[in-house]
Amino acid sequence: MTEPMLSRLQHLMTVREEVESLGELPRSPGTDWPAADWVDEGTHLSLFLDVPGVEPERLEMQDDGETLTLAGERPELPGNLIYQERRSGPFARTLNFPEPVVPGSGQAQLSAGVLRVRFEKLHPTIDAVVSSER
Amino acid sequence: MTEPMLSRLQHLMTVREEVESLGELPRSPGTDWPAADWVDEGTHLSLFLDVPGVEPERLEMQDDGETLTLAGERPELPGNLIYQERRSGPFARTLNFPEPVVPGSGQAQLSAGVLRVRFEKLHPTIDAVVSSER
Repeated sequence: MTEPMLSRLQHLMTVREEVESLGELPRSPGTDWPAADWVDEGTHLSLFLDVPGVEPERLEMQDDGETLTLAGERPELPGNLIYQERRSGPFARTLNFPEPVVPGSGQAQLSAGVLRVRFEKLHPTIDAVVSSER
Repeated sequence: MTEPMLSRLQHLMTVREEVESLGELPRSPGTDWPAADWVDEGTHLSLFLDVPGVEPERLEMQDDGETLTLAGERPELPGNLIYQERRSGPFARTLNFPEPVVPGSGQAQLSAGVLRVRFEKLHPTIDAVVSSER
């Protein structure tokens, strides 16, 4: 094996290790909360966010069709907190839309601590897979 | 420095590194979800758990006065999930009580995706700090 090839392989291995370690590192607080899921519904995109214990009037959302920012605050627990894992206080998270949506089309719904926001896609997907069903 | 001493120190350093790395490593799924807070209320202990989107009939709790196990299931989102961070499917977590409680005394309440369970302490704390207030 020639030296440049070995060097390139070593570089690739390093890059791979770095990429793998990204998945292992805890994400910094503030960027990974609330946790998010995206569901593609053909003509719409639905975003699901876990915001347990956050009152609806403490939630704020802004979107420009490309990114969406959710901000809010979860109240601190009153009393003598002796062990804490749950996040409290203000939070903000900016998410990229998986594909362009109609700006301002989001319809929000909060239920059992889950916020669902449904957006109209700018380019609705036509489902061409139906014909392959048996 | 004698060899055994050096060897012991090296062992201690290794243990320390292992302990420190524990804090950096992501916890394995299933043990750190749902996130938990404990509040000491003098005569009672309250446990708060984030279980957004989990229906009450899908939650099960067992305690023996020393440990508490919460098990449940969060439904998978229907449709074409294109991005997923939110946990779904069955989960279980066992927690140690910060101090002994009266077995079976837990009173559960689910609100906005937060489960609160209030336990009676076996040895209630008497607040002796009141007299130091101005």
